[in-house]
Amino acid sequence: MTDSRMTDLLRTRPVTTPAMLAVFSDRATIAHALAFESALARAQAGTGVIPPNVAQAIADACATLNIDPAELADEAALAGTLAIPLVARLRAAVGGEAAAAVHKGATSQDVADTVLMLQARAAADLVLADLARATVALADLAAQHAETPAIGRTLLQDALPVAFGLRIAHWMAGIEDAATRLRRDVADHALLQLGGAAGSRAGLNGTGEAVAAHMAHMLGLGTGAPWHARRIGVAAIGTSLAMAIGALGKMARDVALLSQNAVGEAREPAVAGRGGSSAMAHKRNPTGCQVALSAATRAPGLAASLLGGLPQEEERGLGGWQAETPVLADLFLLAAGSAAAMADIAEGLEIDAPAIARNLAAAGIGTDIGDSAAIVRALITRQQG
Amino acid sequence: MTDSRMTDLLRTRPVTTPAMLAVFSDRATIAHALAFESALARAQAGTGVIPPNVAQAIADACATLNIDPAELADEAALAGTLAIPLVARLRAAVGGEAAAAVHKGATSQDVADTVLMLQARAAADLVLADLARATVALADLAAQHAETPAIGRTLLQDALPVAFGLRIAHWMAGIEDAATRLRRDVADHALLQLGGAAGSRAGLNGTGEAVAAHMAHMLGLGTGAPWHARRIGVAAIGTSLAMAIGALGKMARDVALLSQNAVGEAREPAVAGRGGSSAMAHKRNPTGCQVALSAATRAPGLAASLLGGLPQEEERGLGGWQAETPVLADLFLLAAGSAAAMADIAEGLEIDAPAIARNLAAAGIGTDIGDSAAIVRALITRQQG
Amino acid sequence: MTDSRMTDLLRTRPVTTPAMLAVFSDRATIAHALAFESALARAQAGTGVIPPNVAQAIADACATLNIDPAELADEAALAGTLAIPLVARLRAAVGGEAAAAVHKGATSQDVADTVLMLQARAAADLVLADLARATVALADLAAQHAETPAIGRTLLQDALPVAFGLRIAHWMAGIEDAATRLRRDVADHALLQLGGAAGSRAGLNGTGEAVAAHMAHMLGLGTGAPWHARRIGVAAIGTSLAMAIGALGKMARDVALLSQNAVGEAREPAVAGRGGSSAMAHKRNPTGCQVALSAATRAPGLAASLLGGLPQEEERGLGGWQAETPVLADLFLLAAGSAAAMADIAEGLEIDAPAIARNLAAAGIGTDIGDSAAIVRALITRQQG
Amino acid sequence: MTDSRMTDLLRTRPVTTPAMLAVFSDRATIAHALAFESALARAQAGTGVIPPNVAQAIADACATLNIDPAELADEAALAGTLAIPLVARLRAAVGGEAAAAVHKGATSQDVADTVLMLQARAAADLVLADLARATVALADLAAQHAETPAIGRTLLQDALPVAFGLRIAHWMAGIEDAATRLRRDVADHALLQLGGAAGSRAGLNGTGEAVAAHMAHMLGLGTGAPWHARRIGVAAIGTSLAMAIGALGKMARDVALLSQNAVGEAREPAVAGRGGSSAMAHKRNPTGCQVALSAATRAPGLAASLLGGLPQEEERGLGGWQAETPVLADLFLLAAGSAAAMADIAEGLEIDAPAIARNLAAAGIGTDIGDSAAIVRALITRQQG
Repeated sequence: MTDSRMTDLLRTRPVTTPAMLAVFSDRATIAHALAFESALARAQAGTGVIPPNVAQAIADACATLNIDPAELADEAALAGTLAIPLVARLRAAVGGEAAAAVHKGATSQDVADTVLMLQARAAADLVLADLARATVALADLAAQHAETPAIGRTLLQDALPVAFGLRIAHWMAGIEDAATRLRRDVADHALLQLGGAAGSRAGLNGTGEAVAAHMAHMLGLGTGAPWHARRIGVAAIGTSLAMAIGALGKMARDVALLSQNAVGEAREPAVAGRGGSSAMAHKRNPTGCQVALSAATRAPGLAASLLGGLPQEEERGLGGWQAETPVLADLFLLAAGSAAAMADIAEGLEIDAPAIARNLAAAGIGTDIGDSAAIVRALITRQQG
Repeated sequence: MTDSRMTDLLRTRPVTTPAMLAVFSDRATIAHALAFESALARAQAGTGVIPPNVAQAIADACATLNIDPAELADEAALAGTLAIPLVARLRAAVGGEAAAAVHKGATSQDVADTVLMLQARAAADLVLADLARATVALADLAAQHAETPAIGRTLLQDALPVAFGLRIAHWMAGIEDAATRLRRDVADHALLQLGGAAGSRAGLNGTGEAVAAHMAHMLGLGTGAPWHARRIGVAAIGTSLAMAIGALGKMARDVALLSQNAVGEAREPAVAGRGGSSAMAHKRNPTGCQVALSAATRAPGLAASLLGGLPQEEERGLGGWQAETPVLADLFLLAAGSAAAMADIAEGLEIDAPAIARNLAAAGIGTDIGDSAAIVRALITRQQG
Repeated sequence: MTDSRMTDLLRTRPVTTPAMLAVFSDRATIAHALAFESALARAQAGTGVIPPNVAQAIADACATLNIDPAELADEAALAGTLAIPLVARLRAAVGGEAAAAVHKGATSQDVADTVLMLQARAAADLVLADLARATVALADLAAQHAETPAIGRTLLQDALPVAFGLRIAHWMAGIEDAATRLRRDVADHALLQLGGAAGSRAGLNGTGEAVAAHMAHMLGLGTGAPWHARRIGVAAIGTSLAMAIGALGKMARDVALLSQNAVGEAREPAVAGRGGSSAMAHKRNPTGCQVALSAATRAPGLAASLLGGLPQEEERGLGGWQAETPVLADLFLLAAGSAAAMADIAEGLEIDAPAIARNLAAAGIGTDIGDSAAIVRALITRQQG
Repeated sequence: MTDSRMTDLLRTRPVTTPAMLAVFSDRATIAHALAFESALARAQAGTGVIPPNVAQAIADACATLNIDPAELADEAALAGTLAIPLVARLRAAVGGEAAAAVHKGATSQDVADTVLMLQARAAADLVLADLARATVALADLAAQHAETPAIGRTLLQDALPVAFGLRIAHWMAGIEDAATRLRRDVADHALLQLGGAAGSRAGLNGTGEAVAAHMAHMLGLGTGAPWHARRIGVAAIGTSLAMAIGALGKMARDVALLSQNAVGEAREPAVAGRGGSSAMAHKRNPTGCQVALSAATRAPGLAASLLGGLPQEEERGLGGWQAETPVLADLFLLAAGSAAAMADIAEGLEIDAPAIARNLAAAGIGTDIGDSAAIVRALITRQQG
């Protein structure tokens, strides 16, 4: 038997934020699933599929039902779906004839997909807030250093001078592009799922579209045709997250390189308790970069799983969509951890002007930064436009 | 020494189309690289960086230079970049003082990235044409079968009746969504690259932006700030291709399942010479589906490579962007092969109405297809809107 | 702040077993980390690096220290490593001058890697037990059906007759090969980690090898040189797990295909509460296959992350190894869930002989199963040899 | 129509060696396929399945048949398999009644898999030779610097002193472990494929095992039961290649970091024409490391494709095994390019002792290299043992 002490916080917490853990916690999952069932009943009352008092009884039960996650998880594992044990509890709570109206016209995947998209919406807001925090701070830094000559490095070798702010402006632009993409993909694809057993919206007396529209409105999601076996939306959100993680990873890679002792041009802000070494008191590790680079190592494989699951079978597939939920959750967890870490660094990056000047002088190739400043300004304008 | 007999057509041709092989052939690559150098010279003449007659001499050389790909490939492998041996040949062909003006202000990656985007643009046109061919044909089929009751299958088990056209409409919508995404990503990200050695556009007397704009116009690409180490555009195009391949793979998976002997509801059109067996004369294999499913097996890993390469170092990275070119080419090759195969199938799909009816009757659960027809119509309308 | 209610059992439990969740739970992780510190102290007392009574004090503290996982996880997230807050607690518990001897000569990664390998060893035992359960049952089934003619299917089309047991023997052999590989990789690579801050085993008075050997003996692990930035062992174990998941997925794919209503040759055993539908009372879903196929969708991307992390920087990398721990844990969780599900299916597979005969007759190509029976016997002999 | 000018050497040659291109060239593929058919006929004559003179006629035709690869590739693309047009040509060349004996008892996949394994064997020999070249050179370097103090770096920060040779010894050990794994996997899994249409070895009068054994002997491969849908061998070889590429990538990552201008402890050997810049005459790029790091970016996704293809359908799958051939070829191409590049670097690595001393002194933490020298010796002994 599973019990609630089977937490794995030591592996999950260091890669993400407590707020994002809460979004994907059992509590939130159960709350969203009950919100689905409640909205379904109320919407069906609206189109006359079930009587209003029955809908009210279901909604009341959804509002008050208390469920032990560990127990529910065991039963869901046996059943092969969360909805079966959840609906069973809800029917028992509602009781009487109304019980049969619970989950009417819906299938397990309707619940699972809608819950996932409710979580995706909340999760994206968290990630986007930290991405915005990073880009705002980086725009400031880029502007400040738009004309500071520094040695540019290509293929890890000293190349020609660039503005130190040019590198920062590219971090900003990369993160901004990823944020734009994520925002759009969540807006386009965070859709209610309501198709019923085989995606035909049977059992709703021809009111399926109206029920779906009403539910979507209540739950704050978009709507459209059922998408049980058409999973491009999940893949789109997932790959956008992987791109955001990659853009943050690019900044992290650079900050880590700049903070090498022999380079010393920039480093993470000092934070009490952060970046220490269990073996060396003198050492300050780029711990935020570590979080971001670790996420960047994991994200591509997770995104590949979502892409690999696209060819799902017939009306609702076997194994494909079931694999998506934990994978998309992982991508959000990693994106949150990476975005928070890099936003903190963007806001407090320690830049060492003498080291920059020293390294440039050592290269011995002058200080002509070309059009660096103009490019920086263009990138900042693009972002703020 | 490499020689031109080292073709690998037996592995590449079956997964793609001759037209797409031509887009990524050595001939095309060399032609695009020379077009870059020619446009660079002419644009620089326009802003006074080099004299017009020098630009003309360079453009003439670009138009007439004849290069052996195998020889160039050996030298590029040694140098670590295509541009070095190419520019050397061009300089020798131009001769005299004008030679120094060849490739002025540009770096190897400027050539490589611009060539890649010229190829991406041409390649996307090919893929999009076949995706459109597929969706047009599928819209017709979906409309024809919008009210044909068939057994819907979920988790590979008979579930409830659906319209046979509903399944087809989902294939269509999935492919259409992927096409829209690919079209947009290529429009947004097929950009000229011109940054010079460290991305500062040094050496162009402050006219870098004008030179870039002029070149982009001549080459038919978009423009913007240099993007040497900001690779989200490549990842965006690549993941869009993987989604297209996934959407085609979903259709292929279903067609293959429907054409199982025990099901027999649909099968690939008969094509002379296609789908035979080297061992069994009686057998007809779903060879187009094979192409699409094979592509769908390979695409996620390729997309992951592009996502994994995002954290590139500093002004221009080491290994990351160099890995992208063959990977993006492979994704286009696979997308072309899959799209062509599935478009052919969409245009000639053999649907067996008696088998559909027989299988539905065997399920013994009636013929109520719910709102199937309305969903089909909504999906077709969405596509044509 | 993180709290212990942030469980995610609804996403993790359905893909794995409670026993495997326990192996990777916070409780187990903390217990293993304390076992490392205890063994380190005792081994150092053995070589005279620290006094015996100090070692005893440390060992006693390790045996009795009670740690709140959620609190520790928050601090580990801040510090960037589990060892820092753990060692701080341990030093406080030990107190006095002995505190300085805690964790002596070790670095955070020594703890993390050793914990991971202790978990890998326990986890592999669980997986191997279920793989063995599957292969034993499959050997029986294969032998029973070594001469039962059935239609063989290739490219999802009826091809030629084979023994029904031949297909089963291949499932068995695939799983057996994967098990052999996993067993060997864990035996070869589940090694103690002890290198100290930079992998030189400094601070142990030249007794590093002896300390490591003693610790390895106490903890039941192999030993060798430190492997902080040489990660092939983790990649080896991880890819072996992905192969096991793939071999189980092959069986699951086939069982799912065989249990299609139109085929009906075999199906999962009936288990109370398993395979139901929230929408269709008449339906029996291949839920075990779903677990295995879902795992098979996720495993390749996870394995790719481990392979992608191999090029770690210098003495101990940044982000690479930190990414491995949750990924390897996920692979074990998925392997456990898949192996348990498919072992249950192997032990109870319902085979429908009349359906097999009917399908073969429908193909109309006779009953010559060639050397099927001999191949089945050879595969069984190979396994039992 | 495809033509032989559709080479893509500009993308393939820089990532690999001419020798490896030759192994996977159309010429080699055709030669191996004809060798399969020739061996099949001769082995069948040996067991009396076909008359000796018929076998001789087939073998003669195989020895003399001249095939245009581009034409064959077009026909293979149409047919969905190489074997169909190849066998057609062979039958036409043999003529008369003997034509029917060509390819007797075999299926397309028998040819394709056997060809792949013949190429894998030849390709592995090439890779292993360069891996050995690297490890031999690195063992020398490690021994030379077994007591040279250098600053060790962890998380990209100066940490504690280590022997410079310790880092090199780890490169050596990582590459050696990968080589051992690759050698073993090729020995275990480079097997003849001979199963016939559905894997039952029908049509060989019960002599299938003898025919297979004889063929394997003639072709220099191992033998066993058919493995049409049991693909762990391909995945094993592919993941071993990815590990080799990862181990080489680790060395490349370090060499690139050490050769940064601000560090300068080591750099690639100077090679005429290598590492230049098209824009900066003063620059020397780590071009060999670029090749290896680019390969390391691509390999994990390729390996994931092989792992993702494991759950193949029934007796012979649809799309899965067809995806493997180009992927495994790509992994060998990348491994060859990386191994050759890093072996060259190992043999000529320029080590800057004053820079090493200077960087260590700058860290200001002494010169105690702990047990570094002992660990170096143990790793060298392990390799040579």
